[in-house]
Amino acid sequence: MSAGINTYKTDLREIFFTLFEQFGFGQVAGQAPFDAWGPDEAKAVLSETYRFAREVLGPLNSVGDREGCRVENGAVFTPTGFKDAWKKLYEQGFKTVGVSPEHGGQGSPMMLQVTVEELLSGANSAFNMYPGLAFGAAEVVAECGTPEQQKQFVERMLNGTWGGTMCLTEPHAGSDVGAAKSTARRNGDGTYNIRGTKIFISGGDHDMAENIIHLVLARIDGASPGTKGLSLFIVPKLRINADGSSGQPNDVGVGSIEHKMGINGSATCVINFGESDNCVGELVGTVEHVGMSQMFKMMNGARIAVGIQGIGLASAAYYNALDYAKDRKQGSHFTKWKDPTAPRAAIIEHPDVRRMLLDIKAHVEGIRSLIIKLAMHLDKARQLAGKDDDAATYHKGQVELLTPLVKAYSSEQAFRLCAQAIQIYGGAGYIQDYPVEQYTRDSKIFSIYEGTTHIQAMDLVGRKMGQAGGMHFQQFMGDVGSFIEAHREHAVYGEAVKSLAAAQEALMASAMVVFGWSQDGSKFPLIPLSANRFLDMMSEVAVGWLLLDAAVIAEKAKGSVSADHPDHAFYEGKKYSALWYARNVLPNVEQAAKMLTIEDTSPMDISDAAFASV
Amino acid sequence: MSAGINTYKTDLREIFFTLFEQFGFGQVAGQAPFDAWGPDEAKAVLSETYRFAREVLGPLNSVGDREGCRVENGAVFTPTGFKDAWKKLYEQGFKTVGVSPEHGGQGSPMMLQVTVEELLSGANSAFNMYPGLAFGAAEVVAECGTPEQQKQFVERMLNGTWGGTMCLTEPHAGSDVGAAKSTARRNGDGTYNIRGTKIFISGGDHDMAENIIHLVLARIDGASPGTKGLSLFIVPKLRINADGSSGQPNDVGVGSIEHKMGINGSATCVINFGESDNCVGELVGTVEHVGMSQMFKMMNGARIAVGIQGIGLASAAYYNALDYAKDRKQGSHFTKWKDPTAPRAAIIEHPDVRRMLLDIKAHVEGIRSLIIKLAMHLDKARQLAGKDDDAATYHKGQVELLTPLVKAYSSEQAFRLCAQAIQIYGGAGYIQDYPVEQYTRDSKIFSIYEGTTHIQAMDLVGRKMGQAGGMHFQQFMGDVGSFIEAHREHAVYGEAVKSLAAAQEALMASAMVVFGWSQDGSKFPLIPLSANRFLDMMSEVAVGWLLLDAAVIAEKAKGSVSADHPDHAFYEGKKYSALWYARNVLPNVEQAAKMLTIEDTSPMDISDAAFASV
Repeated sequence: MSAGINTYKTDLREIFFTLFEQFGFGQVAGQAPFDAWGPDEAKAVLSETYRFAREVLGPLNSVGDREGCRVENGAVFTPTGFKDAWKKLYEQGFKTVGVSPEHGGQGSPMMLQVTVEELLSGANSAFNMYPGLAFGAAEVVAECGTPEQQKQFVERMLNGTWGGTMCLTEPHAGSDVGAAKSTARRNGDGTYNIRGTKIFISGGDHDMAENIIHLVLARIDGASPGTKGLSLFIVPKLRINADGSSGQPNDVGVGSIEHKMGINGSATCVINFGESDNCVGELVGTVEHVGMSQMFKMMNGARIAVGIQGIGLASAAYYNALDYAKDRKQGSHFTKWKDPTAPRAAIIEHPDVRRMLLDIKAHVEGIRSLIIKLAMHLDKARQLAGKDDDAATYHKGQVELLTPLVKAYSSEQAFRLCAQAIQIYGGAGYIQDYPVEQYTRDSKIFSIYEGTTHIQAMDLVGRKMGQAGGMHFQQFMGDVGSFIEAHREHAVYGEAVKSLAAAQEALMASAMVVFGWSQDGSKFPLIPLSANRFLDMMSEVAVGWLLLDAAVIAEKAKGSVSADHPDHAFYEGKKYSALWYARNVLPNVEQAAKMLTIEDTSPMDISDAAFASV
Repeated sequence: MSAGINTYKTDLREIFFTLFEQFGFGQVAGQAPFDAWGPDEAKAVLSETYRFAREVLGPLNSVGDREGCRVENGAVFTPTGFKDAWKKLYEQGFKTVGVSPEHGGQGSPMMLQVTVEELLSGANSAFNMYPGLAFGAAEVVAECGTPEQQKQFVERMLNGTWGGTMCLTEPHAGSDVGAAKSTARRNGDGTYNIRGTKIFISGGDHDMAENIIHLVLARIDGASPGTKGLSLFIVPKLRINADGSSGQPNDVGVGSIEHKMGINGSATCVINFGESDNCVGELVGTVEHVGMSQMFKMMNGARIAVGIQGIGLASAAYYNALDYAKDRKQGSHFTKWKDPTAPRAAIIEHPDVRRMLLDIKAHVEGIRSLIIKLAMHLDKARQLAGKDDDAATYHKGQVELLTPLVKAYSSEQAFRLCAQAIQIYGGAGYIQDYPVEQYTRDSKIFSIYEGTTHIQAMDLVGRKMGQAGGMHFQQFMGDVGSFIEAHREHAVYGEAVKSLAAAQEALMASAMVVFGWSQDGSKFPLIPLSANRFLDMMSEVAVGWLLLDAAVIAEKAKGSVSADHPDHAFYEGKKYSALWYARNVLPNVEQAAKMLTIEDTSPMDISDAAFASV
């Protein structure tokens, strides 16, 4: 396949199952503020999105990878076709499915928006970052900006007229945002003079929109050090005229773009603000020094978006590898491997290929469930706010708790699973004729940007676990426990549910172990040393639970379809995803819990000098 | 860092320890046929190789990646600088350190040759494939060719005058070599008319040598199907004149080269033999239909070479990431993370960075030990043949047994560890300014070519385990057991040795479980389903053992150096490698053994239709 041919594939039946049969989209939709939405509307949107993903974005995925972006005369040019895709994306409204009508959107539940995003990102991760960052930036202005700012910026950033970015990272401050050196000087007219260099700015410049609205973290002269001294500014690439149109350049320059392992269609820019001391910004909202918490409103959405990028590529890798395995003939059936005259078998007949496929299938379905569940909690928190505050608090708490899992587990697994898809292809997977090597390269960034896996793990262990006195975690464990109680003796899944119970128990014991460390200064280093392991354990309990939950639902549904209906095989597939995960992943949770109790501090005990003699 | 700057780094102290202190290079060398060799000679060769790796090959690593190869008028052109490097490599004799003097080599032990290869491959994996394949092809001719063929080809293929390839793979026969469709027709004069297309031929053409000698698997007209009907042919790109010089073209054409995820400096060619029905080959040796076993003589060396590629890149990733972690300042020390005014700390101070570094360190050292141990067995088998046949048989058996471990475990871990090095760098690791993203891309092929990981696993479980009535495996387990008995009560390592004992016991139990499956037709699918897991378990036992062995040696040695000598910290480093692995990896062996007993057949139980509804 040459550049410009679509390779994106998904299985809408699977997404419909998760939305409608597992997470009751129909119950969330149909009620305020989602009155206008129901399953039929959602299906129509997803079918349209899938068509767009295959016809427009998918064919540009390898184009963006091979061509990359270029800088000419200080301006970024995106790959062939991106500009046209941007126009179509916004014309057809895919980016505003979940946006409230007051900002020009269609006001769907987030549950639908995240699945729309999965298709867009899965078809072209690099492309979808541009509108994704514009969306995130618009959200911050919508939530924290003054009414004038909302009016001036939000709708135009949501309808594709303007792009948007989030400018946090600086050369000496990556994960350590608080070390930012960019400055803001009060101009006396309410505006600020912005100076500083930001790096790794995705979509920091491009040729698809008329203007780009940067949200820039900077320190107002005299403000305190660290994150508490940072303010957030709206800094347009082109100044905004009195009539709201884009005007003269605002002393915002592209220094260069990075050459990366992947997502080559996405311009990763060095941006210089105020090189000529002539860059004007306005504070987001009216309060100084609250930039970090404003930015964090965007950060949570951005982290969920990265989790969605992960599932998008892992899922695309799955359906590509599956089709290849069905199509590609090599070797004979394993029961006839000694017979050179046996007919050549499709490689899907080979046990190791089936093993790898089922491993990807189970992870993809389970992680997708986790993401849609997170979105459901977002929707319900919104629906129930002011009506049932306890319930709303519960749903909000689950959003907080599950966000680091979605970001980190989906990212790490996406890279592993895309690489495993290469292995299914064999040598063919290593060449650019097939999409899986690009997926692997593209997905490696997911575990890094918007907070590395370790930052997610520390967010979970150091913050989210203890929120509301640990209530969010207890409620999560309670939900898992209810499922276990209800299905412990299930005829088909009883054994698997017992594995889940053992994993849950191990997770609870580990939570107590980690809590114990936090009370004992001498053991404090064990927390960062073990945080990633704990995040994995909790992610595995969550995914194992949701796969079993889906399997139980499918088991019931299967009863009402005939054996020759395609749904019959589909529901059977849910069974094996759950059983695979319960037998091959969940037991690792118990093992990991044991390893936590070893309290291994060897990484701290070793001296710097002992890492190498050079 | 721009293209053309060396980034290759290693720690010769570490290699010297493994060669001299752990595996007694001095005892193997100094005796026939290695009389001329001792530690001083080995150190001199390694120091020279390291200089060459840094000064010549290292700077070309990113050049080869960015520039790639190109085909013009049916000829491959290698990246800038490769031709000159090829010349220097052979002038300085690095490729023939371990070659016997009768073929123009220096006759060193393999133990030294594998470490030389580690440096060459670590500095530039793509470049080192060209001479590596010439070497492997020459070995086959040296071992299987007629005296005339040996005289005509071997020395010239070993001194860089001619290149060489192995041509197995065809469009419809990758791992399934026996399905090859290339044909050979007897010309009547002792030569053969060769026709067929081979794909994925590394170094299939290039501009660095005067001629390229292809070893081609093809089926003589009328031969039986499958691997047993294949013969091996010498097919030069240019025909050989009567005086031994290269003459007219031999109807060997480059169809195209692949665009790959990595190793871009290595030309991966489609080669057409006999498009004009005018391609002449000669049989290797004098016996037809034994091509597969002849090729396999090369294959074992090639598999070890891939294991060496793995350690080369994983080790290079380690020393790069370590230096970056020492140099890069970000965030404050974890005990002061709430204080924004605390000084910025080098990221090596962060627990999670130390954890990732120690994980890479332990794996790199342990896998290197496994490779050098394998080479030691090769050397001793050669030394003892005809003198002590039992001992020679033992050593040969360990070579057979450990080869799939070296190939598969080193390959899989190399990719994982290189990707983990990216994570240590954070966003910087994803851009081409640092070498780790290239290492990650380059290393993904290792688990695929020269037999995928699953092929190695089946070779282990289905062939090597049972060789000589299981004796090789029993001897391996006996060696591990002797170490355990000797050190079970070790003051420092007692606990870790007990973990090794538990892992060894679990491995033995699993071997019995797998054996049981082989006796029960209904359970046969469990063998391919579990083979990769078993290979990992055995690799982990081997690596855990060798790390502890090294640590015990280092512990003793540490007693005789003062605390301020650099060796003191170095020996301490061995301790933490062993403890890390014993506490964080070895327990997984027991867990994996438990999972084998679940006898999960879900990948076979699921129907093809249930993998997806599309």
